[in-house]
Amino acid sequence: MVTVELVCVGNELLIGKTLNTNAQWLAKRITSLGLKVRRITTVADDLEEISSAIREALLRKPRFIITTGGLGPTFDDKTLEGIAKALNLELKTNNEALKMIEEKYEQYVKEGKMEKAELTPHRIKMATLPEGAKPLPNPVGTAPGVLLEADNTIIIALPGVPPEMKAIFENSVLPILRREAGDMVFYEASLEVLGIVESEIAPIIDEVMHDNPYVYIKSHPKGEEKTSRIELHFSTTSADSETAKNRVGRAIIQISEMIKKKGGKIRPLKTAE
Amino acid sequence: MVTVELVCVGNELLIGKTLNTNAQWLAKRITSLGLKVRRITTVADDLEEISSAIREALLRKPRFIITTGGLGPTFDDKTLEGIAKALNLELKTNNEALKMIEEKYEQYVKEGKMEKAELTPHRIKMATLPEGAKPLPNPVGTAPGVLLEADNTIIIALPGVPPEMKAIFENSVLPILRREAGDMVFYEASLEVLGIVESEIAPIIDEVMHDNPYVYIKSHPKGEEKTSRIELHFSTTSADSETAKNRVGRAIIQISEMIKKKGGKIRPLKTAE
Repeated sequence: MVTVELVCVGNELLIGKTLNTNAQWLAKRITSLGLKVRRITTVADDLEEISSAIREALLRKPRFIITTGGLGPTFDDKTLEGIAKALNLELKTNNEALKMIEEKYEQYVKEGKMEKAELTPHRIKMATLPEGAKPLPNPVGTAPGVLLEADNTIIIALPGVPPEMKAIFENSVLPILRREAGDMVFYEASLEVLGIVESEIAPIIDEVMHDNPYVYIKSHPKGEEKTSRIELHFSTTSADSETAKNRVGRAIIQISEMIKKKGGKIRPLKTAE
Repeated sequence: MVTVELVCVGNELLIGKTLNTNAQWLAKRITSLGLKVRRITTVADDLEEISSAIREALLRKPRFIITTGGLGPTFDDKTLEGIAKALNLELKTNNEALKMIEEKYEQYVKEGKMEKAELTPHRIKMATLPEGAKPLPNPVGTAPGVLLEADNTIIIALPGVPPEMKAIFENSVLPILRREAGDMVFYEASLEVLGIVESEIAPIIDEVMHDNPYVYIKSHPKGEEKTSRIELHFSTTSADSETAKNRVGRAIIQISEMIKKKGGKIRPLKTAE
């Protein structure tokens, strides 16, 4: 499977000010396309921290590294500098990026958001990319995304503001991931099990996973209620969706019978939470 | 400052099924105690992935590594095995942990949750700890937390189920962190700036941070509205809360004046979002 690593940059994530919804959104989207997110690393707005996270990720040779955050105009937007440092590249003003940014500010002036569209150093900063990088248009905000190839890894830098991150992903990143994923399909389903505890389900999962080697089953105990309530999550990745569905279906039938024998009750969960 | 790394274990985080609220909760709690979360790493329920994440974190010599997830009875609960592998330790049945688990199951039988309290292999698994580790009582669920010292790093393993993670943290981890933090205090405040764009605020932040070297200021552009809306977040860590408040207060006064001169409007935000 094609692997992806996420590197999320932002002090706000490390002080717990912000919930990392970007990582979840990307992980879900990437998984649904049939690729595998192998690791998510969150680091501070710090040049050394960013460049070591990128360097370490590169050593694991994922096909993609996708970063979020740190592309804006302020002093602590250091993601591109971190990527350049990790790869020993120079930072240079990229004309294509500069044009994208210039057009944005001209538009903001037209909309009355600001008076002057001049290219200040803080604005030029957003067009200062590692050598060889390509800007990805930002349909929602100002700072463009960035794409850069390093050996066999494609590094993609996205902004941290969620609507900007999502828009660049959908417009510019999705087609690339889809091409790389080939025809892999991710399929998942969930069951809720009532009335038996996780340690009683554990040996049942072992047996069903042994009999269904392509299906991954994970139990998630829910809440602290009086009656034990456990979500069982089934997932598989396959070259076609029919096979994927059948595999999960077979595992669900087998596990349901075994749980009923143990006195547990089962409720289907339409969509995974 | 005393540093902490978080290692979150769970396939559900990497497929985007689950939002990593544990990481945010811990990061916020740890920061408020005056310690610094340096990195958050999320890896799969895989022995190699867990042990390399632990090994890499140890190389950065944080005072604490706190893991979440992977302590339960199922085959894919591999966190303790991963920690043992990273440290080259053997896994052994821990009598104190075994007693905690036995008592839990006896209690479940009394409550009518299950019929037999016998110690099956899947239940003994939760009491199988790296040599030298100490179990931390779980007031809410079954699997105990685990504490282990490795050179100058204290490794603490917490369950992934949020109420269990939080309960063990508050009861057993908080006192240790508080002792290590000494008297450091984290203080934060936020302002909302309307009517000027981030690239206009960027040089102002540079100047105010230069004049207020202990205060960290970060801008967070919000949404896609017609009028630019930016949250400015101020934070500092200090040995006493009076100093911390004064530092942030001075920075806020200075930045407010500069923003007003540029034509921006300011609204205080009582609590950080």
